[in-house]
Amino acid sequence: MFHRKLAVIALAALAAAPALALDAEQAEKATETRQSVLEVVGWNMGPLGAMARGLVPYDAEIVARNAQRIAWMSSMIPDAFRADTRPHDVATEALPAIWENYARFEELAANTQASAERLAEVAASGDEAATKQAIGALVDDCRACHNDFRLDD
Amino acid sequence: MFHRKLAVIALAALAAAPALALDAEQAEKATETRQSVLEVVGWNMGPLGAMARGLVPYDAEIVARNAQRIAWMSSMIPDAFRADTRPHDVATEALPAIWENYARFEELAANTQASAERLAEVAASGDEAATKQAIGALVDDCRACHNDFRLDD
Repeated sequence: MFHRKLAVIALAALAAAPALALDAEQAEKATETRQSVLEVVGWNMGPLGAMARGLVPYDAEIVARNAQRIAWMSSMIPDAFRADTRPHDVATEALPAIWENYARFEELAANTQASAERLAEVAASGDEAATKQAIGALVDDCRACHNDFRLDD
Repeated sequence: MFHRKLAVIALAALAAAPALALDAEQAEKATETRQSVLEVVGWNMGPLGAMARGLVPYDAEIVARNAQRIAWMSSMIPDAFRADTRPHDVATEALPAIWENYARFEELAANTQASAERLAEVAASGDEAATKQAIGALVDDCRACHNDFRLDD
């Protein structure tokens, strides 16, 4: 069971190389993978947005921890989206523009990573007001990418 | 749209505190989150298992990069599974044993993280045989946790 799963995933990873076209199963897997990366971003972003707006108590340790995690996840975004699923009928909010302008997509992912790393530093400094501003800057970077590359956002 | 999503996620995060019971929507969200964390692990594990068995060419840089990512993801596992979804009818392979013995579950996640960090170091050293052994050790840690805490593995 474990081995079979690994083999499917390994094939999907291979197929993610730009020169190889994906088959339908690989396209589904690639879609699931990139959605999972962003799901983990959202999980860690949620409490930060809620703290910035005063919906939950501010906690600098959680901010620093989650910001670090968001930086890690952002560093995976370019790899996670490299598999071009445009030829396949997958359920996705990823716009074709991603693969039409991958360099720009990578640039926005790098901006998000940098903002998340900056947020982790600011949160560790103990300055709550500056931290909330840095959360806002990170949210802006999320939005900038969603605006151009994600459906309905 | 973005704000509404953040609010839902923030509420789910709050509800993940041990003292609060989850409602059905929060249980679904928590399930999706933990599955996403493991999906990202699997995405990065796939090529390592395939390299260890000679199915794809060995690439020390990819091993080191993916091992680091697996260490990051493993560090999130205890938080990702904290929300106890036992009272809810969610589609999950997570066994009740997780919440019956959370300390042991956390211990196995920590073992996996340590093995992944060790693998990243060994891969960076350039010793291919030792790296393949370290991949095997990491796979063993994955299995140890799946055996006790995941359905059908």
